[in-house]
Amino acid sequence: MKVTLSALDTTETFFKPLVIIELAQDVKEETRKWLEKKINDKKKNGGAQLLIRPLVENGEEQTSESKNLYLIGASTIRLLLGAESVGLVKECNDHTMRVFTYETRQNFSGFSDDNDDFLTMAECQFIIKHELENLRARDEKMIPGYPQAKLYPGKSILRRLLTSGLVTQVFPLHDKESLKKLESTWYNRFKMKYQPLDGIRAYFGETIALYFGFLEYFTLALIPMALIGLPYYVFDWEDYDKYVIFASFNLIWSTVILEVWKRGCALMTYRWGTLLMKRQFEEPRPGFHGVLGINPITGREEPLYSSFKRQLRIYLVSLPFVCLCLYFSLYVMMIYFDLETWAQDVHHDSNYPELTSFLLFLPSIVYAIVIEIMNRLYRFAAEFLTSWENHRLESAYQNHLILKVLVFNFLNCFASLFYIAFVMKDMKLLRQSLATLLITSQILNQIVETLLPYWLQRKYGLRVKKKVQALKADVDVTLYEQIILEKDMGTYLGTFDDYLELFLQFGYVSLFSCVYPLAAAFAVLNNFSEINSDALKMCKIFKRPFAEPSSNIGVWQLAFETMSVISVVTNCALIGMSPQLNAVFPDSKIDLILMVVAVEHALLALKFVLAFVIPDKPQEIQVKLAKLEFESLEALKQQHIKLVAESLKEELKEEEKKAA
Amino acid sequence: MKVTLSALDTTETFFKPLVIIELAQDVKEETRKWLEKKINDKKKNGGAQLLIRPLVENGEEQTSESKNLYLIGASTIRLLLGAESVGLVKECNDHTMRVFTYETRQNFSGFSDDNDDFLTMAECQFIIKHELENLRARDEKMIPGYPQAKLYPGKSILRRLLTSGLVTQVFPLHDKESLKKLESTWYNRFKMKYQPLDGIRAYFGETIALYFGFLEYFTLALIPMALIGLPYYVFDWEDYDKYVIFASFNLIWSTVILEVWKRGCALMTYRWGTLLMKRQFEEPRPGFHGVLGINPITGREEPLYSSFKRQLRIYLVSLPFVCLCLYFSLYVMMIYFDLETWAQDVHHDSNYPELTSFLLFLPSIVYAIVIEIMNRLYRFAAEFLTSWENHRLESAYQNHLILKVLVFNFLNCFASLFYIAFVMKDMKLLRQSLATLLITSQILNQIVETLLPYWLQRKYGLRVKKKVQALKADVDVTLYEQIILEKDMGTYLGTFDDYLELFLQFGYVSLFSCVYPLAAAFAVLNNFSEINSDALKMCKIFKRPFAEPSSNIGVWQLAFETMSVISVVTNCALIGMSPQLNAVFPDSKIDLILMVVAVEHALLALKFVLAFVIPDKPQEIQVKLAKLEFESLEALKQQHIKLVAESLKEELKEEEKKAA
Repeated sequence: MKVTLSALDTTETFFKPLVIIELAQDVKEETRKWLEKKINDKKKNGGAQLLIRPLVENGEEQTSESKNLYLIGASTIRLLLGAESVGLVKECNDHTMRVFTYETRQNFSGFSDDNDDFLTMAECQFIIKHELENLRARDEKMIPGYPQAKLYPGKSILRRLLTSGLVTQVFPLHDKESLKKLESTWYNRFKMKYQPLDGIRAYFGETIALYFGFLEYFTLALIPMALIGLPYYVFDWEDYDKYVIFASFNLIWSTVILEVWKRGCALMTYRWGTLLMKRQFEEPRPGFHGVLGINPITGREEPLYSSFKRQLRIYLVSLPFVCLCLYFSLYVMMIYFDLETWAQDVHHDSNYPELTSFLLFLPSIVYAIVIEIMNRLYRFAAEFLTSWENHRLESAYQNHLILKVLVFNFLNCFASLFYIAFVMKDMKLLRQSLATLLITSQILNQIVETLLPYWLQRKYGLRVKKKVQALKADVDVTLYEQIILEKDMGTYLGTFDDYLELFLQFGYVSLFSCVYPLAAAFAVLNNFSEINSDALKMCKIFKRPFAEPSSNIGVWQLAFETMSVISVVTNCALIGMSPQLNAVFPDSKIDLILMVVAVEHALLALKFVLAFVIPDKPQEIQVKLAKLEFESLEALKQQHIKLVAESLKEELKEEEKKAA
Repeated sequence: MKVTLSALDTTETFFKPLVIIELAQDVKEETRKWLEKKINDKKKNGGAQLLIRPLVENGEEQTSESKNLYLIGASTIRLLLGAESVGLVKECNDHTMRVFTYETRQNFSGFSDDNDDFLTMAECQFIIKHELENLRARDEKMIPGYPQAKLYPGKSILRRLLTSGLVTQVFPLHDKESLKKLESTWYNRFKMKYQPLDGIRAYFGETIALYFGFLEYFTLALIPMALIGLPYYVFDWEDYDKYVIFASFNLIWSTVILEVWKRGCALMTYRWGTLLMKRQFEEPRPGFHGVLGINPITGREEPLYSSFKRQLRIYLVSLPFVCLCLYFSLYVMMIYFDLETWAQDVHHDSNYPELTSFLLFLPSIVYAIVIEIMNRLYRFAAEFLTSWENHRLESAYQNHLILKVLVFNFLNCFASLFYIAFVMKDMKLLRQSLATLLITSQILNQIVETLLPYWLQRKYGLRVKKKVQALKADVDVTLYEQIILEKDMGTYLGTFDDYLELFLQFGYVSLFSCVYPLAAAFAVLNNFSEINSDALKMCKIFKRPFAEPSSNIGVWQLAFETMSVISVVTNCALIGMSPQLNAVFPDSKIDLILMVVAVEHALLALKFVLAFVIPDKPQEIQVKLAKLEFESLEALKQQHIKLVAESLKEELKEEEKKAA
């Protein structure tokens, strides 16, 4: 059992590298040694008990590039014990999912002592990240060699190293072989089939697998809408009753698919174990600062920041600022419409229509550019503001940032459409703008997001290959090349932008669906290629991201549900305004409006009832969860019955002694 | 330490009786002995290890009334161990709330070995009820002496005894002394002060204390609405802007008070320990039946009933039936309005107006009687149907019953008002009907619900007293009298009707608030007397109910929130229809309607944002809960670090052995 031995001999140099740490260029030798010791040291001495090795061990062969790179790995036992400490949930031999413990390891399916595949590589890397982040200061008052990088008991050492810039990055390595396997079943296919979600999860972790799962589910769910929308385009249907049918179907459908997704998501995450995984106690996010004080929850000394002050910042600064930005965005939109009419007037009155015809395009182009600039500036401002709000937890920071960005992007994308629909009441222009916006944004996204970085990455890759080949050393050239290549790859910043894109697409499809039934078809086409380009992006362009366990798509579920509520309102309004329907009620516009409002309310009520009636978890999962709960209650009860018997016996003995 | 000794000597006859079991008149001696033994027997022998004694021990002095009554009690230790098994949460010496365990008992505030007051009497009775219900069959195939009363391993014996009619009732005893103390601070007061909610909770348990807490909170919350409504009545304000202000205030206010209640409720139930109490695994309700099979959750053999069949019954029978009833109720209402116009026509055209004037009252009287009859019939049908749906859990049964009854009562109470408001558009009649309905229903309720039973109860009490005095025996006459008296008192059927009354009142106050601002004032007046009459009802008229732990008002929170959403719609519609507002927009009714719809949507959106932004638990409670969670995670982590060290050490030894 070679593996087990190496677990104990933590200085052994042969191990499978899982994670890379890159130090800053000029870190002092003293700090290097201290960090190496910390990572290698026994748990009881405050270390992480992991394996660490510099990329190139021979001092003479180290280049300035390679000498700051360290490989981190761990023995199999260490990983199994780590799996217990992060609370990993795995499948047992009896096909139930249970929290993994080292003691009960033999009960888990696929486990045997000489099997290294029990934990997926993504899980191993997640465990190592968790152990590194949980490497905490004991008596150290500072990072050795850097008195300004202060520590206090319980502070995460890695986080301090990252915030003080001594560690530039920590990232997990790709596994070229598994990656190739994954790629071949994922996007290098010509046949239509489902994505290998379990494979994606094993390689990239649950958060990313859930994104791809949602993308695929959403695309499939759009197909019925696209199919029903097609004849409207083909036969040029304009009857109001057909529009009403289409819109009603759309609204009910969008509610149903969002509810059904929750169920599918529960099924998937149960199988992956994250549905049962307990949330770990969240650490303060790296950027959080405050006055040292006693945390009322942990009882430890750590930076504190009054939540009242944070509320003040949110409601007195951020909220007004966001409102101002929204107002400004609307103002710019109004200028655009003014410009548009001005250009049309000029063109109309012009004596040289050939010269002025280009003027017709000018406002749209300028507006598109301005919107892009505003979006970027606002994103920057939102990040600054949310960071300034000084949230203690990363999750709170993310939620506040998402909310800010969502609201602004929603307005930026849809305000002009709302204006055309409800102020100008020009359905033809609405349809045209909607088509233009949807299609151009999809094409642009595909290019900017994937193809461009892919091309740049390939160019860079070739350069590195040449450089490595020039280097004649007896180091492990493939690994060396891989690491040098990966360390300069871009970092995947999370699923935020991908979900945002999908969210806006959902808006284009559902908000004005009764005006432009073809939108769903375009969305479906785009998403099929989006799946491939996003997959390419994950596999080729970015550094491998750390796996993040998650049991649902979080705040995005709420965002999509809100969008589907708003789309009930807009679609009812559009149908109410349609000339076809108005022709049916020529004399009684009031009755028409009242009827539309009544239908809208009924649809909204129906939506809420549907959301309430459809259970969030399938029966099957409910039974499995109840079974687990029942078992733990039973165990407690058994333990209790024993205790009752023992306690009463002891009391009896005591009484007898006293009596004697 | 006398108490401890008695715990072991379970045959000791001196103990404080807590719970009474009444057997049927003709239960066989064999069954009596078996049940007595089961209750008295040691836990390890499958008993409940409680103390049991017939009310009158001397066989000759037993009357037919008293010989079927048994007193149940328990030793202090037994109760403490029971408190652990039901998962009671108590305050510790460091002012945190923790799950009570017998081992750590010294950490809890107010505990000492010779203190019997650590557990409240309601808690003791709840524990005894729990232990009795958890008395389960082992190998018995039937109740001894009654072959038709079948048992299977794990079946609750008490439930089988109750369903087969061998035990007629199990109820907790009143504690006359504490009750007197409670009454003096609760309703025998002339000064205005808050209710002694902690005292109510200690005596009646959390569910009832929460009802009184909610009643009080709701009454206080209505006071601002009542105060703002008064000048509208006094000065006869009719300006539309004032109505708009009143209605808007009302709508925002009702959202805020419902959200704030959740916070107050969390504060209270944290203090009472039920916020932290884990839900016990729910047993099938007594009426549940099915084919014996293996329960997939517990793995035990017990009656099963397919959830698909239940769904079929719900959607194919119950739902259509409820819809039919609703339709019928509307139909009756239409007949009432026809009768009303007929009566007025007859009176108008009559030559003898003195004779026909009584005709004017006839429709209202008939309709009121018919509504009452329909309500009772429907309640009966709803109970039958819900029982026929064969829900496995009592909570599911309750929720389905509440939903059915709520919808029908809502329609019965408010349909005529909706008809007057939105079809007849007669605001004067609406105001008049609203006032009549609100005031008469309140007065009727107070009489039927409290004063009548109180009067009957007093008469009965005097009769029992005489009978007991006639009986010349050396039994404990006060206890004997108390038990004979209490066993024939009515059973309090839960808070359902009390909440329903409050819910309908909330409807009267909020649905048409802008038409009749005085409603809140009447509601406040009624509720002040309702608090007293409900308190009287609990203390004097009904048997003491078993305490039921609960951490919130459950489905009623949702019901009240739904009502406040509906009231936004109705109030906006009423304001839109008001002649004052229509006078402002004489020419553009369409603009008016659109404006009203826009305002309504904005108000609804604001409601949802408010509900989202106001946290459900106060900061203080959040911190306390987080602290508990953190502590348990820390404990796990410490345990884990030890395990890592030990496991690695053991592996090392094994390896060394192998190497040697």
